[in-house]
Amino acid sequence: MNDLAIGLDSANGGHLYEQIYDYMKREIRKGKLLCGERLPSTRSLAEYLQVSRSTVDLAYGQLLSEGYIEARPCRGYYVCRIDDLFAMKELPEQTVMSQAEEEEVFPYDFSPHSVELGSFPFGTWKKITKNTLIDDRKEMFALGHPQGDPELRNTISRYLHASRGVNCTPEQIIIGAGNDYLLMLLEKILGKKYTAAVENPTYKRAYRILQSFSYDVKTIGMDLSGMRVDELECSGAELAYVMPSHQFPTGIVMPIGRRLELLRWAAEKEERYLIEDDYDSEFRYRGKPIPSLQASDTAGKVIYIGTFSKAIAPAIRISYMVLPERLLAEYRKHCTFFSSTVSRIDQSVLNEFIRDGAFERHLNKMRKIYKNRHDCLVTACRNMLHHVKISGENAGLHLLLHYQGERSEQELIRLAAQRGVKIYGMSDAYIGNLPESRKPTLILGYAGLSEERIEEGIRRLSDCI
Amino acid sequence: MNDLAIGLDSANGGHLYEQIYDYMKREIRKGKLLCGERLPSTRSLAEYLQVSRSTVDLAYGQLLSEGYIEARPCRGYYVCRIDDLFAMKELPEQTVMSQAEEEEVFPYDFSPHSVELGSFPFGTWKKITKNTLIDDRKEMFALGHPQGDPELRNTISRYLHASRGVNCTPEQIIIGAGNDYLLMLLEKILGKKYTAAVENPTYKRAYRILQSFSYDVKTIGMDLSGMRVDELECSGAELAYVMPSHQFPTGIVMPIGRRLELLRWAAEKEERYLIEDDYDSEFRYRGKPIPSLQASDTAGKVIYIGTFSKAIAPAIRISYMVLPERLLAEYRKHCTFFSSTVSRIDQSVLNEFIRDGAFERHLNKMRKIYKNRHDCLVTACRNMLHHVKISGENAGLHLLLHYQGERSEQELIRLAAQRGVKIYGMSDAYIGNLPESRKPTLILGYAGLSEERIEEGIRRLSDCI
Repeated sequence: MNDLAIGLDSANGGHLYEQIYDYMKREIRKGKLLCGERLPSTRSLAEYLQVSRSTVDLAYGQLLSEGYIEARPCRGYYVCRIDDLFAMKELPEQTVMSQAEEEEVFPYDFSPHSVELGSFPFGTWKKITKNTLIDDRKEMFALGHPQGDPELRNTISRYLHASRGVNCTPEQIIIGAGNDYLLMLLEKILGKKYTAAVENPTYKRAYRILQSFSYDVKTIGMDLSGMRVDELECSGAELAYVMPSHQFPTGIVMPIGRRLELLRWAAEKEERYLIEDDYDSEFRYRGKPIPSLQASDTAGKVIYIGTFSKAIAPAIRISYMVLPERLLAEYRKHCTFFSSTVSRIDQSVLNEFIRDGAFERHLNKMRKIYKNRHDCLVTACRNMLHHVKISGENAGLHLLLHYQGERSEQELIRLAAQRGVKIYGMSDAYIGNLPESRKPTLILGYAGLSEERIEEGIRRLSDCI
Repeated sequence: MNDLAIGLDSANGGHLYEQIYDYMKREIRKGKLLCGERLPSTRSLAEYLQVSRSTVDLAYGQLLSEGYIEARPCRGYYVCRIDDLFAMKELPEQTVMSQAEEEEVFPYDFSPHSVELGSFPFGTWKKITKNTLIDDRKEMFALGHPQGDPELRNTISRYLHASRGVNCTPEQIIIGAGNDYLLMLLEKILGKKYTAAVENPTYKRAYRILQSFSYDVKTIGMDLSGMRVDELECSGAELAYVMPSHQFPTGIVMPIGRRLELLRWAAEKEERYLIEDDYDSEFRYRGKPIPSLQASDTAGKVIYIGTFSKAIAPAIRISYMVLPERLLAEYRKHCTFFSSTVSRIDQSVLNEFIRDGAFERHLNKMRKIYKNRHDCLVTACRNMLHHVKISGENAGLHLLLHYQGERSEQELIRLAAQRGVKIYGMSDAYIGNLPESRKPTLILGYAGLSEERIEEGIRRLSDCI
C-alpha cells in the first residue's frame, strides 16, 4: 500500500475520485501495477488516503467499467490482463485549415456554377423559420418519414406538375440532401451493377459519381438533338444519364423526337432506365418552359432528379427524386431503413416557403435578374467580341462562345486570366479524347456576376480574343 | 390554312401565343399535322388569326425549342419527324398519404430508439438561427466545403477531444446528414468490396446498410467483453463495426483489454479497419464517461462515427466521421466531388450552439432527465417485477431485462401489448439463428417516457411477468 503514492490535492478542482482513478489507470498503463496484482480493498485504501469509502468506490467503479481492473467475488479487486497497452496519443496541435485549398479569386469569374447569393430572401426565410420553431410542435423534432415529410412531398408533386409537367404522386418522391446523395441512394435502389451512359461532353460531377458506383460508364456522342440513341444502343448501357431541358455544357434542348426515341430505347428492356437531371430548368428566358422528359414517359422509365439548391441557395441542401412505380417498389422492399437526410425543420420551412407563394416570387425575381445578366452578356459578346458565335443561350445560367480565331482554348484561358477574367474551356467537360477538328469553345456563366462586371469582363476578354 | 381551326379566346386568360402553341402541339401529337408538312408562314398565320406577327413568332419559337417543328432556311417551318408519340399521361388524382404506414400507438412504448422531444431548446435554437440569417453574411449561402464548414469541424474536434478523448484534427472530420449517409460515403472512400463483421446481436440498421454495400457481412459472437476477437480472426473479415461505449442491444462496455485486442487485430493488415459507432455515448449515469476506442488508437485504424441527432433532436440531421490519415488521403484523392449534405445555415447554428455553451447546458439537462428516468425504471423493475435480472444499466438510453420465468419472449410481448405496453424482444437484434439456451430478454428504452408512464408501464408489465 505504501507504494501507492497518490498525491491527492483537494484544492485542484478535480474530484478526489477522479484523481484516484487517474493515478491508478496511469500506473496500470505504465506497467507499475501488474496484471493479476491485487488492489487494496476499498476500506483500507479509504483509510490510507483519508477519504470516504464511497470516493474509492467511485474510482474503482470507473476502472471496472473501463476494464482495467476486475472484481473477484469474496476476494477483492485485481488488475486485468491487458496484453500490450498502446500509449494514448497526445492531441496534435490544432492546425489552422490550409488556405492552399482556396483557389485564386478572379474579379471577373464566369463560372457556370455560380449563382447570385445577394438575393436570398432572408426576411421571409427568417420569418418562416421563427414560426416553425414553436414549442408545441415537438413532433417536428422526431425523426421523420424516410422519404421526407408527406406535406412537403405533396407540395413538391404539385409544383413539379405545374412547372415541369411531371406526373407523380407524393408517394413516388424521395427528398434528400442534394443530388449526389440521391444518386447514391438510387444506386442502392437499383441494386445491381449497371453499365451506364452519359452524354459527352457532360457534367463531370455526375460522371464521377456514377464511376464511384463501380458502374461501367460509357460516353455517348451527341448531335444537335442531344445524346445519340444509335450509339447508346451499341454501347451496351442499360442506364442513361441525360439533361434534356438544357444540357450541360452544350445548352442543347432535346427535341421531342429524340426524347421519344430515348423513351422507346428504355421501354425495350425491363431493367433499362433514364436518369433525368432537370438541371437549371427553372430558368428559361424565351417562351414557355420546356416540359420535362418525365412528362412524356408512360412506361415508368424515367427517374427524375431536381434540386432547390440552385434556385434558392446552394447552401440549402434539398433535392428530390421521382421514382417510377417499379423502382418505388424496390425502394420500399430494400431501402426504407436509410433515414432521411434533411432536417425536418428545413423541410417544414421550405414547405411553407413554397406554399405561401414566396418561392414563386423568388423565382420570378431571380428569372428577371438572370435574364438581364443573360441579355447583357449576349449583347456584350455581340458588340465587343469578334470571331465568336454564341450558342446555348435563352435558358439556364451559362452560354457557349464558339471561337473562330487562331488561338487555342488554353491560350485564351491563360490570356484572360492575366486580365483578371476567369473563363472555362469546354474541353474540361469532355471525357476521354477530344473530338478531332473541335474549335475552341468557352463556357461563360453569368449568374454570379453583376451586369457591370459582365460588361467589363467581356471588354477585357475582347483584348485577347 | 382553313384546316387550322384555332379557336383563339383572348378572354380566357392564357396568352394568345400559348393558345396557338397548344393547338399546334396537340395537332402534331394527334397526327393531324403530319411529319414533313409545311406550316403557314408566320406572316400569313398572323393575318389569318388577326394577331400580331410576334405572337405567332413566339408560338413557333416554342414549338421549335421543343422539337415539334423545324425551320428550313429560306423555305419556312415544317413538322418534324417524330416516330411514335406517346400520349401525355394525365396527372393521377392527388392521393392522400396512406395512414396504414403508421404503426399502432402504444401509451407505454419502451422503444430503445425514442428520445425526449419536449426538451429541445427552442428558444436558444431560434435565437441563434435568427442571428445567423443576416443579410451581410451572404457567403453562407454558397455551397460550402465538402467536408463541412471548417469552423464547425474545429468546434467538433475540440468537443470530441474533451468529451470522448478522440484525437483528431479538424481536417480529419467529415460532417454529413446522418450516420447512414456517412457510411455510404465511407463505402466510396474504402473503395473496395469488404468482408465486414458485426457483433451479434447488433444494431440491425447498421447491418442492413453494410449489406446494401454488397459487402459480405459476417456475424461475430460476443462474450461479456464484447466482440470475440478469436471469432473475428477466423471470419476472414477486414472491417469490423463495433459499439465499444455501450453496445446495442447488450449494453456491454468494452473493457480496455478487448479494445487493445481489436486494435491489434486491425494493425496486423494494412486494409483492416474498425468502425466505431459511438452511439449514445453522451449518456452515462455513473462515473466518468468511458473514452472512445479511437482514443487508444495509435495506428490509424479507427473510423469514428457519432451524431448530434440523438443528443439534440433526431430531426437535426448532423453526424460526423473522423477518418484516420490513410483514409483521409483516399477521400481527398477520390471523393471530394461529393457535395456536403448539410445546409450551411444548420452548420452555422450548430456551431454557435456548441460554442456558446448551449449544447453543454442542454446535455446536462438531458442527462439529468434521462438519469431520473433510468433510476425510476430500475427501481420500478426491482420493486415490481419478479423473475428478472437487469443488465446494461448505468449508460445509454435502454437496459435489458433477463427473464427467468416460463414464458417466451413473444408471449411476453403479446401479453404486454394487450395492456397497452410495447416492449421489444432481444431476439430481433440477432442475425441468423438464435443462440441455443437463450433466455427471453427484453429491451426497455426509457428516454421517450415520463417517470409516471414508466412506473405505470412496469406496473402493467408486472401483471404478465
